[in-house]
Amino acid sequence: MTQRRPRILIWNEFRHERMNPAVAALYPQGIHEALAGPLRAAGLEVSTATLDDPGHGLAEDRLDGIDTLVWWGHKAHAEVPDEAVDRVRKRVTEQGMGLVALHSSHFSKPFLALMGTGCFLKYRIAGEKERLWVVDPGHPVAAGISDCIELDHEEMYGEPFDVPPPDDLVFLSWFQGGEVFRSGCGWRRGLGRVFYFRPGHETYPTYHHPQIQRVILNAVHWAARPEGLEAPVRGRRETPLEPLG
Amino acid sequence: MTQRRPRILIWNEFRHERMNPAVAALYPQGIHEALAGPLRAAGLEVSTATLDDPGHGLAEDRLDGIDTLVWWGHKAHAEVPDEAVDRVRKRVTEQGMGLVALHSSHFSKPFLALMGTGCFLKYRIAGEKERLWVVDPGHPVAAGISDCIELDHEEMYGEPFDVPPPDDLVFLSWFQGGEVFRSGCGWRRGLGRVFYFRPGHETYPTYHHPQIQRVILNAVHWAARPEGLEAPVRGRRETPLEPLG
Amino acid sequence: MTQRRPRILIWNEFRHERMNPAVAALYPQGIHEALAGPLRAAGLEVSTATLDDPGHGLAEDRLDGIDTLVWWGHKAHAEVPDEAVDRVRKRVTEQGMGLVALHSSHFSKPFLALMGTGCFLKYRIAGEKERLWVVDPGHPVAAGISDCIELDHEEMYGEPFDVPPPDDLVFLSWFQGGEVFRSGCGWRRGLGRVFYFRPGHETYPTYHHPQIQRVILNAVHWAARPEGLEAPVRGRRETPLEPLG
Amino acid sequence: MTQRRPRILIWNEFRHERMNPAVAALYPQGIHEALAGPLRAAGLEVSTATLDDPGHGLAEDRLDGIDTLVWWGHKAHAEVPDEAVDRVRKRVTEQGMGLVALHSSHFSKPFLALMGTGCFLKYRIAGEKERLWVVDPGHPVAAGISDCIELDHEEMYGEPFDVPPPDDLVFLSWFQGGEVFRSGCGWRRGLGRVFYFRPGHETYPTYHHPQIQRVILNAVHWAARPEGLEAPVRGRRETPLEPLG
Repeated sequence: MTQRRPRILIWNEFRHERMNPAVAALYPQGIHEALAGPLRAAGLEVSTATLDDPGHGLAEDRLDGIDTLVWWGHKAHAEVPDEAVDRVRKRVTEQGMGLVALHSSHFSKPFLALMGTGCFLKYRIAGEKERLWVVDPGHPVAAGISDCIELDHEEMYGEPFDVPPPDDLVFLSWFQGGEVFRSGCGWRRGLGRVFYFRPGHETYPTYHHPQIQRVILNAVHWAARPEGLEAPVRGRRETPLEPLG
Repeated sequence: MTQRRPRILIWNEFRHERMNPAVAALYPQGIHEALAGPLRAAGLEVSTATLDDPGHGLAEDRLDGIDTLVWWGHKAHAEVPDEAVDRVRKRVTEQGMGLVALHSSHFSKPFLALMGTGCFLKYRIAGEKERLWVVDPGHPVAAGISDCIELDHEEMYGEPFDVPPPDDLVFLSWFQGGEVFRSGCGWRRGLGRVFYFRPGHETYPTYHHPQIQRVILNAVHWAARPEGLEAPVRGRRETPLEPLG
Repeated sequence: MTQRRPRILIWNEFRHERMNPAVAALYPQGIHEALAGPLRAAGLEVSTATLDDPGHGLAEDRLDGIDTLVWWGHKAHAEVPDEAVDRVRKRVTEQGMGLVALHSSHFSKPFLALMGTGCFLKYRIAGEKERLWVVDPGHPVAAGISDCIELDHEEMYGEPFDVPPPDDLVFLSWFQGGEVFRSGCGWRRGLGRVFYFRPGHETYPTYHHPQIQRVILNAVHWAARPEGLEAPVRGRRETPLEPLG
Repeated sequence: MTQRRPRILIWNEFRHERMNPAVAALYPQGIHEALAGPLRAAGLEVSTATLDDPGHGLAEDRLDGIDTLVWWGHKAHAEVPDEAVDRVRKRVTEQGMGLVALHSSHFSKPFLALMGTGCFLKYRIAGEKERLWVVDPGHPVAAGISDCIELDHEEMYGEPFDVPPPDDLVFLSWFQGGEVFRSGCGWRRGLGRVFYFRPGHETYPTYHHPQIQRVILNAVHWAARPEGLEAPVRGRRETPLEPLG
């Protein structure tokens, strides 16, 4: 079982960075490039796409051969066309592509379609302290993270988080303002895997934090299309395997 | 914790019964009435609706106050309008209505929307024997069922069943022709619960079987909107509960 | 499905109350009586037992007919004999008795035996504030609780909590000192159910809090032996149900 | 994330092979060597141990550095001393060692201790046909297996299988005699993982079947101690991370 080099596509809405100088100062090349750097440094094959690319950056040829799709969106979810959403959803459930949804992508159309719930939560933008506690230290997505990750300033997300019960729960967040949140959750959907990771409001330098980068690297590996994946047999089976006496 | 009398709506496509004399002979008043009888006999408040009713039988006023919606559909899934599907999905996730999806309803639009996967499976119509084995004897949906339910003639459904990992797995089916299937599965979705129960191809008298009727009664109770349900607090929380530094 | 009146046994170590005046002042009749009051007021049939009763309060005749056993222990876990532990464990897995383990009972022998893990956690006794957030508002154990329960002074328990992934996760705790904890967790074990509820350090008046009492009432109902439970068929099955070859 | 070469210990009771010529004919070097061959061929570092070795083959130095322990036992479960069982259990939950329990090892003491349930099931030795169907085709343990594995002659195991709800369900078995079984189940326990794989009665050549060997190879990898595992922080935390104002 030799491990192939995963191919990653990072999709970013890429609007805040172009309209808000404070965000541009934090992410001059865009959040997608900030996310791509550490993954490239770890030896992954990484391409990027943005909402304003041709085909919204989600044409078939952009998705072909991708093992994990990383998604960051916030204010323009509605501009992603439903055909593209269905394309992404089917790549996950029918071909085993992984999806790593970051922060406000809890409201992105592909994540909503895969969850089947409203994905509502509480939120507050007050630059408060967040601590992400490891609840499953043996989980691959927690590899290299000991005890907790501390972020000095983040947006608050609070429970209840309206998602299906996660198949894997890796991180819980504590917020200075008094709330908690399931910040690192995994789900199996069809042949693929989905991971949601909470941190990353655009006005904070979260994606420059080495431990946040490590978790995203772990999640990208965990969610990647598994080796030796066999396409399942489906549909009509005329002939029984046993005599029907 | 006194138990209120659950209000049930049984929705049936009601096409086979009107077009196929063999089905009409088994279910002269329609599958919905065959399902309603035992639930009424158990003291539940039961109404029925069909695809060809005004508003496709799914107008707001038909759904108001319903604790569990039972769904049977097969060949006309596409005729259910998306607005109605979204209405049903939100009643489950945002108001706690239960959904019990029967047999070919694995491909019904509300079930697909709540699962987020393709819900594919194998199938064969050969009138073969099915045994539904109880795998979780302590589960309320298995109440009154000892060991297994035997059906002389049913359609075969085979794995892999393309659904999210069930939160509750209650029954596994054995088929004479050589396949197996997760025939009784429960999921929590938002405030509500969804139960899928496999048996019930229209050309067999499955819904007249007392143990099948008992499982559906159990499932309708299990999925029903819980007592004392509190609508969750969501959205913007301007004021922190604790002072921010 | 008429609901029978559940029979509850509350087992309490009952040592702190007799040795520590501060605890005696909070729970003059013992924690078991403080827990019993609200359950009796809700119409349940409640008996109590303590470590120093004959047979450690866990003789067969004390357990006969019990639907849910509530357990509070702290410093004398080791004094509970292994035969009694095995008796309790088998009542849960083989007869469907519920177990509700409170606070420091995470280290009680019956809970450890049912979990199979070390059940380790972090702790700090500093009288800090705790908030228990509802993460699954549709869950029966959260019935009547809106948003969160606030306790002014409690012991802190922190993640990672070394238990198997809960089948049901209902509450998450926020602590003033910076930690979080999965404070309300359910598991299915054999024919029975186990619920762990975190609050209740003996030096705080936690069990006099109406919302804490409501959660314990909910948990006792949720864990109770299900109606119509059928003892599963096991062991050697000489005769196949179908002809071989 | 380079993948280290996992170190495997295969523990076998090794009694049937020495007492029953029919079993010796199938497994002349013992079941442990039959299991070791394909794992060695796949490049894993494999050692073996048996019940009659010094320290029952389970001394600390045999377990040191082991990433996955494979276990086969049947008639001599009781001869494994409780200290050794506790040693194995703690290696899994506290150090992340994987455990792959095969066939009649559902009644082995380490598996029972990790499950917390009775692990009862139905059985019949009649040399009937078994089909293991893949229910989760995207799961790493199903890698390389398409649709189902067919075994001409095996012992029957039937539901209900008295184990906690699996965190991962990969295979379901169909038996010619009419029963079904959850034949491939995974659980997370503490820092480690446990996989149960059903086939392998000693009087059949099951472990010579290439697809069965592939599943065991997959399971050994899946269960292996994860890379970058951080020992969790536990116990007393004197100092709060935040002021308790």
